[in-house]
Amino acid sequence: MSSIEQKSANAIRFLSMDAVQKANSGHPGAPMGMAEMAYALWHNHLSHNPSNPNFFNRDRFILSNGHASMLLYSLLHLTGYDVSVDDLKNFRQLNSRTAGHPEHGYIPGIETTTGPLGQGITNAVGFALAEKMLAAEFNKDDFSIVDHYTYTFMGDGCMMEGISHEACALAGTLKLNKLIALYDDNAISIDGDVSGWFTDNTKQRFEAYQWNVIGPIDGHDIEAVSKAIAEAKTQSEKPTLIICKTKIGKGSVSKEGSEATHGAPLGDAEIAAIREKMGWTSPAFETPEDVATHWDAKAKGLAAEQNWAAAFAQYETKYPELAKEFLRRMNMALPENFNEIIANAMTEVNAKGESIATRVASKNALDALASHLPEIVGGSADLTPSNNTFFKASKNLDIATGEGNYVRYGVREFGMAAIMNGLALHGGFIPYGATFLVFSDYARNAIRMSALMEQKVIYVMTHDSIGLGEDGPTHQPVEHVESLRLIPNLNVWRPADTVETMAAWASGLTSDKNPTLLALSRQKLSFQPRTAEALANIAKGGYVLKENANAKATIIATGSEVELAMKAAEARDDIRVVSMPCVELFRANDATYKTSVLGNLPVLAVEAGTTRGWYEFADAVIGIDTFGASAPAEQLFEVFGFTVENIHQHIDQLIQK
Amino acid sequence: MSSIEQKSANAIRFLSMDAVQKANSGHPGAPMGMAEMAYALWHNHLSHNPSNPNFFNRDRFILSNGHASMLLYSLLHLTGYDVSVDDLKNFRQLNSRTAGHPEHGYIPGIETTTGPLGQGITNAVGFALAEKMLAAEFNKDDFSIVDHYTYTFMGDGCMMEGISHEACALAGTLKLNKLIALYDDNAISIDGDVSGWFTDNTKQRFEAYQWNVIGPIDGHDIEAVSKAIAEAKTQSEKPTLIICKTKIGKGSVSKEGSEATHGAPLGDAEIAAIREKMGWTSPAFETPEDVATHWDAKAKGLAAEQNWAAAFAQYETKYPELAKEFLRRMNMALPENFNEIIANAMTEVNAKGESIATRVASKNALDALASHLPEIVGGSADLTPSNNTFFKASKNLDIATGEGNYVRYGVREFGMAAIMNGLALHGGFIPYGATFLVFSDYARNAIRMSALMEQKVIYVMTHDSIGLGEDGPTHQPVEHVESLRLIPNLNVWRPADTVETMAAWASGLTSDKNPTLLALSRQKLSFQPRTAEALANIAKGGYVLKENANAKATIIATGSEVELAMKAAEARDDIRVVSMPCVELFRANDATYKTSVLGNLPVLAVEAGTTRGWYEFADAVIGIDTFGASAPAEQLFEVFGFTVENIHQHIDQLIQK
Repeated sequence: MSSIEQKSANAIRFLSMDAVQKANSGHPGAPMGMAEMAYALWHNHLSHNPSNPNFFNRDRFILSNGHASMLLYSLLHLTGYDVSVDDLKNFRQLNSRTAGHPEHGYIPGIETTTGPLGQGITNAVGFALAEKMLAAEFNKDDFSIVDHYTYTFMGDGCMMEGISHEACALAGTLKLNKLIALYDDNAISIDGDVSGWFTDNTKQRFEAYQWNVIGPIDGHDIEAVSKAIAEAKTQSEKPTLIICKTKIGKGSVSKEGSEATHGAPLGDAEIAAIREKMGWTSPAFETPEDVATHWDAKAKGLAAEQNWAAAFAQYETKYPELAKEFLRRMNMALPENFNEIIANAMTEVNAKGESIATRVASKNALDALASHLPEIVGGSADLTPSNNTFFKASKNLDIATGEGNYVRYGVREFGMAAIMNGLALHGGFIPYGATFLVFSDYARNAIRMSALMEQKVIYVMTHDSIGLGEDGPTHQPVEHVESLRLIPNLNVWRPADTVETMAAWASGLTSDKNPTLLALSRQKLSFQPRTAEALANIAKGGYVLKENANAKATIIATGSEVELAMKAAEARDDIRVVSMPCVELFRANDATYKTSVLGNLPVLAVEAGTTRGWYEFADAVIGIDTFGASAPAEQLFEVFGFTVENIHQHIDQLIQK
Repeated sequence: MSSIEQKSANAIRFLSMDAVQKANSGHPGAPMGMAEMAYALWHNHLSHNPSNPNFFNRDRFILSNGHASMLLYSLLHLTGYDVSVDDLKNFRQLNSRTAGHPEHGYIPGIETTTGPLGQGITNAVGFALAEKMLAAEFNKDDFSIVDHYTYTFMGDGCMMEGISHEACALAGTLKLNKLIALYDDNAISIDGDVSGWFTDNTKQRFEAYQWNVIGPIDGHDIEAVSKAIAEAKTQSEKPTLIICKTKIGKGSVSKEGSEATHGAPLGDAEIAAIREKMGWTSPAFETPEDVATHWDAKAKGLAAEQNWAAAFAQYETKYPELAKEFLRRMNMALPENFNEIIANAMTEVNAKGESIATRVASKNALDALASHLPEIVGGSADLTPSNNTFFKASKNLDIATGEGNYVRYGVREFGMAAIMNGLALHGGFIPYGATFLVFSDYARNAIRMSALMEQKVIYVMTHDSIGLGEDGPTHQPVEHVESLRLIPNLNVWRPADTVETMAAWASGLTSDKNPTLLALSRQKLSFQPRTAEALANIAKGGYVLKENANAKATIIATGSEVELAMKAAEARDDIRVVSMPCVELFRANDATYKTSVLGNLPVLAVEAGTTRGWYEFADAVIGIDTFGASAPAEQLFEVFGFTVENIHQHIDQLIQK
């Protein structure tokens, strides 16, 4: 019945339904609905090299509706990536490479982890922005070393999520013309036909964002989709949305077009009936040879990479310094002398001994460290003057040319965070972005995704406690520092002064497998003099700031409470003080070091945030377990018990126990 | 120079700049920019009674750009609410009623707390939805007992935030024609002129949402704004957006139109210059008598309420039962026999002794309890079949008539949560809404706002751990239960079986000052038999599930780990087990009770989530401090150490210490 094109699309369908059936778990409906779209893009347009998934100049493909993971796994398998039939058979099983949702790092070819809806399209905006900025930096009139498209598939869920508004509005403003999104417009979500809850005119919506919109077209018409993509590629200013009308579970005999195909296996009988209807005689997991041959993209991919490599060799000859820098950047290697730069900066900031807000110290750290990093790309969700993120080497992104290293994200915290994930994943950049700490809530799941994907993304979160004062409870983080510490693999720093802030930035810039979050004060904090040993130990996350042979108790403090703890310790002679700017790094030390820091005396923790977490190390805690209040900061600290007297009372009680 | 209208608008300007100046902190630019809009709405249209801010049928006004708090305080003061000049002079001071951002409950007339951008407009959608649903329930052909508008002011920040997409798209779909939003389109945000990061065609965007859009009009033209509002009020199907072009800091001599007016006092010299320019001779905080008289809305408000009261008296005569129910609902009183209903439901569910997933038990609890509550309004962010939130008395909201008690929110977690806050704040409803627990991240700041505003909102969060299995790390909450526990004033329940689930719902429905969040299992959990005492103590948040005179250690467990703890305790004779479904409520008990539960033996906590928090009560913890994995649930629990053997090993170590 079928052309080779249609059979190739159907091969995706069968692999997807077979794998879901075997796993007895998964989502067959979306891969079946997008099979033709996938064929049109992956066979006719996508430039990639299955034999080298890291081929730099490949087009990026992001499956924003990540529950359609079997679509991606099928495509990787069929085009020739290192994804075997056994991998497909192990879909969703323990330790398999084919997880329930596409997990970056599990299999080459997964550009980003998707599943949390709306974040894939937002990552894609980051990828496209990275391409635009790298092209501006490295391309020459005679060489387009950086020249690829970013494609994404997205569904109704992505369209409904708020983050799609943030990402797509900004993509239009930034004129990311090489971003091409294909919208799987099947009008079905888990609750059923979307007409009761989703009635956007999406074409009109995206035109309002300054996008080029094609369609609606028939998403099952390979030629129509392919033609639309070809048209999109000619855009010189606008990102393109191709609206593809599809049927979820397309091909299913009894369930096509129904939400019943979304999140459960179709059943053996139904799959058999589909095989019969389509005349598909291959057994489960087997692809007919002609189809397999037709899909194989290895030769084409190799040629694409060889072409690029030949051009790059010429580029290297003509622009050796630039080529070297390009390779360094794409390998995510820091400049060779960067450790020295850090050491000098630490010495200098320590010698200077300034008492300033850590948000200001953060800008100074950027001046000292990031000025040496062309890969840095900063930004703020419209709080630049408050976050102090525009440093001396910052240059606003020029939308026309793609030059610059500072992005004005607008009031879009979640979008900013997920775009930064895309920038980091693309390669070539270390992104940092800022907002008030309390609004980390808005971005929280993207911060989690940075951590899950082990990306070097740096979050600059200022106004870190009641210390912000008059803006009041809605703006005062209370639970945030502790709640962020709970995200696995995220390093949360709450520095006490200029020196710890420099150390925090150094840690963030050199941690290759962790995102870092800096919680910084609005208000001025006192510089703390340190021994050489203490100075060196900051990097361990927690260290003895004040030792005391007569001590009967230890105070652990972070951030703005360190100077208070020091005051309390200086007022009498039986207290030692530990500063613990990064709990995660402290916890990673060996037991000997940890014991040497924590000691065996009673421990009081002091932090202007929720108390519960501190019982890991402390016997008592001075903290805040209610919401804050609107008033000048000094008054608030007193009202909430952050006084020398209260610390002494607590210490006395601990000692008497 | 000025008409009384213009002088009245200017009165807002001067009060705002004077108060910010005196506080030496705050946001003068927005109130100055919206002064004419505020006059047009509050003087010419808004139906309210300053002498009774709770007049039920008042129009609701929500200041979504909450940093313009002085606009609202000025309006409340000028129209005759209990807001004195001294209150204005105490702006942003400790214990004052005029906090930095408008805080619900501090002053009558603040319908909702705003400041976190985008949430005010979303609350407003909830208010308008509440009005529509109440009207459908209580109005009769001859009586429009429920008949008011919901107005909101919103700025560029609200427009950029993703949640504005979720809220406004849904408002269009739900045809909330009595929602009227005035957009303060000043094209300035904190980073400056928005043209570099915000280029939406907002008119086109909102038309894509099926809104009626008026403008752009001149937002400083009182007559034009007033006329637009009048036109908006005639809409029978669509919500209306009025785009008002304004200048931030309008009236400022040297800073009009600049972001410099946004977040800092203008300075005494500038204010003096403005007084001079406008011919404003009144000293700071004083309003000229003619302007004060012109603004006074007490008589008009009293008349409005008296009219309504007269109609309601007739309604009461004709429909006594309905009137009684209406008053009960608006007083947020539960049905008189509700404690009895709870007691019976507890007895019944305990007698039944079913072993089912707690997400299924949650539906049963809704059947048993919520069926008796016409005020319940449920929903899900497009996961109804997975969340089990559509119970036997659920009826889909009929968009045409407003009838029904179940809202299909679409894939809009944050929007759902903030809309629920609006439903609760309006009065007449107890909202509950659902998603997967991991996506509480998306809604997190709105959950925080429920807690800050002490609203009875119930969050149904299913798929609460690695126990969801194959969907993998992106969908498996690890840090979420603990991180939600950190939000002040939020009760987080993680029930172990059908009985605890019933108790959790009972707690949520009867807690007048707390939102409640239920973390529920996807997988089946074993029923736990209990003594009468244990049964009664569930409501205390933590209780002894298995006492043991020979015990040498105590296990504290929650949710799915309770049955594991019980298995471990049954396999040997030296363990007692505490179930602690709600840490917050447990902590609120007196010391005697807490000691009786915690005991003085070594304590092991077991929970399939991050460990750090449990050191508050425990000496050791079995938990998960990494991300999860994609595999069948039973295998995951084993891999992550949730086995009887591992528990016994930990207990042995604790005992030997």
